[in-house]
Amino acid sequence: MSMLTETVAAITPASIEAMAAAEERQSMLTKPRGSLGALEDLGTRLCGMYGECPPPLPAPVTIAVFAGDHGVHAQGVSPWPQEVTAQMVGNFLAGGAVINAFGRQIGAEVVVIDVGVAGAVPQAPGLQARKIAAGTADMTQGPAMTAAQVQAAIDVGIEVARDCVAQGSRLLVTGDMGIANTTASAALISVFTGLDVAEVTGRGTGIDNLMLEHKVSVIETAIRINKASPQDPRAALAGVGGLEHAGVVGYLLAAAALRTPVILDGVIACSAALVARAIAPCAADYWVAGHRSVEPGASAALTHLGLVPLVDLEMRLGEGSGAALAVPLVQASARILREVATFDSAGVSNKE
Amino acid sequence: MSMLTETVAAITPASIEAMAAAEERQSMLTKPRGSLGALEDLGTRLCGMYGECPPPLPAPVTIAVFAGDHGVHAQGVSPWPQEVTAQMVGNFLAGGAVINAFGRQIGAEVVVIDVGVAGAVPQAPGLQARKIAAGTADMTQGPAMTAAQVQAAIDVGIEVARDCVAQGSRLLVTGDMGIANTTASAALISVFTGLDVAEVTGRGTGIDNLMLEHKVSVIETAIRINKASPQDPRAALAGVGGLEHAGVVGYLLAAAALRTPVILDGVIACSAALVARAIAPCAADYWVAGHRSVEPGASAALTHLGLVPLVDLEMRLGEGSGAALAVPLVQASARILREVATFDSAGVSNKE
Repeated sequence: MSMLTETVAAITPASIEAMAAAEERQSMLTKPRGSLGALEDLGTRLCGMYGECPPPLPAPVTIAVFAGDHGVHAQGVSPWPQEVTAQMVGNFLAGGAVINAFGRQIGAEVVVIDVGVAGAVPQAPGLQARKIAAGTADMTQGPAMTAAQVQAAIDVGIEVARDCVAQGSRLLVTGDMGIANTTASAALISVFTGLDVAEVTGRGTGIDNLMLEHKVSVIETAIRINKASPQDPRAALAGVGGLEHAGVVGYLLAAAALRTPVILDGVIACSAALVARAIAPCAADYWVAGHRSVEPGASAALTHLGLVPLVDLEMRLGEGSGAALAVPLVQASARILREVATFDSAGVSNKE
Repeated sequence: MSMLTETVAAITPASIEAMAAAEERQSMLTKPRGSLGALEDLGTRLCGMYGECPPPLPAPVTIAVFAGDHGVHAQGVSPWPQEVTAQMVGNFLAGGAVINAFGRQIGAEVVVIDVGVAGAVPQAPGLQARKIAAGTADMTQGPAMTAAQVQAAIDVGIEVARDCVAQGSRLLVTGDMGIANTTASAALISVFTGLDVAEVTGRGTGIDNLMLEHKVSVIETAIRINKASPQDPRAALAGVGGLEHAGVVGYLLAAAALRTPVILDGVIACSAALVARAIAPCAADYWVAGHRSVEPGASAALTHLGLVPLVDLEMRLGEGSGAALAVPLVQASARILREVATFDSAGVSNKE
């Protein structure tokens, strides 16, 4: 049995019993009912994921940053040179990037997985050297990846999540790096939501109107050439996805199989989540939307996934940065159920 | 010179030089320009507050919960019995309330100030026993407080902020407890924004339509009877405010005088901020909006203050809970400027 088949077979829905217990407990705690808004729903969902109420504290936390390059960069969809992917991986490993600063803020470990960077990546602690290919092929000329490459990259993601959980992580965060990866993301989101490419394509790291128009037409071509369809998720991923997207797909599925919540970052994670849900629908029970990225495709994907983001600060960086900011909120939602006294235990009168 | 006069005289605007340096630094860091959205603006503001770029890490953090009761409770504006204020103070001191759980999440100290609780409050570590009166008078029958009570409660707030900063706090959070205190808050917000009472009055801890209608008419009466006007902020505070509101006013002004940022919680803090800004306009340079409370008055006040909240999770608890959740975001915005490498230092190519 393949690693993916085994993983998908192990995924079960979140526990309805634990969620019912959580809802009852929420109403007994010393706060007006519903006064913690979205955090109450989130705490209840966490109980469903972990299968117990109260839930464990979602810590320690690991942020896995999947890095890869994109052949479609040759079509001029990004103003940044491709070597920035490898350079930023170096920056992650040296601790100088935003995700490192945010990781320190939340006490999380940052691991970087080279699943497909075109250039050479420095060997340093924190790097997992799992390069499947030196970037994808240009999706306007044929599939971005072969079926074997997709499978290998998904397996990398599965192994990363398994390792994180085996080493004690109780909350995973998605991260990504790859110049031009918003192009692959928009393509996947258009395919899996059925929305027009123009509706789900954004400015990525910052492009002008002319380049945006060009990016839309490049994506339309890629979807057409590869006959990408939601009916065959792995073929769609091979056609218009990226190696880091495939890595995140495996990571999301394995986390669900291990009943470990994952916080989705922005448009790359959201596009991968659409693919992963098409492979295993109830895996989505284990995902939390970290933030609302400025990228229009991210919001479209979240709507399709039925997830409401926790943070909305007009960010569009990637790396896992938006999801990292949501970590303390997820932990706070668990603390409510774990730590807050009940009306009875605290001797507080309830509403008249 | 009174403590308030001395405090107001010490408030200076945020440093334009430090903010200009921060803006320049933001553009040199290894991230697409503007990609961290609201956190970039926040980090720049922090530099202005502290007067240096990069800013210090905003830690340690103190959450000051000002507690008081309200004579207007007798008018039937809340479904909760008044003794809940004292009971919840007991819960805070025992560590069992939501604000305690959130304080542990962010590594903050919670101090509770009895500035006007009607009932007896347990003596315990963490309590500052500074009771000015056993609750305010009923604002529908005359002023809620005398001028001397307002001044004494403002002085308490000033002393609390001074003590926090003297003990090392570099970031303050507002908190509050007081059954019926959304009534006083809505009254102040109507007076200082000029908006109709019905527009700024909410359901507080949870009231039905009939009680909401009654609450609006009680507030309208109180404003009329006390001739509350924004031209005389201290008289308006005495007329329709609360002892905890006055405490927060002093706390906000003293923090500004000490160039220490304060995160505003919900509708109580926002209403106090309107009063404090009317007393000292540039004090607002030092305030950060923690979250968007469900209470309509909170949003109205924030608009009037020109502040955009960091967190929006449909919360309406008070205690400082929404502001506490914003602490890691404020700290993250400082870490960007303190810790992220520049394109030059990290050897990363900039946009073409």
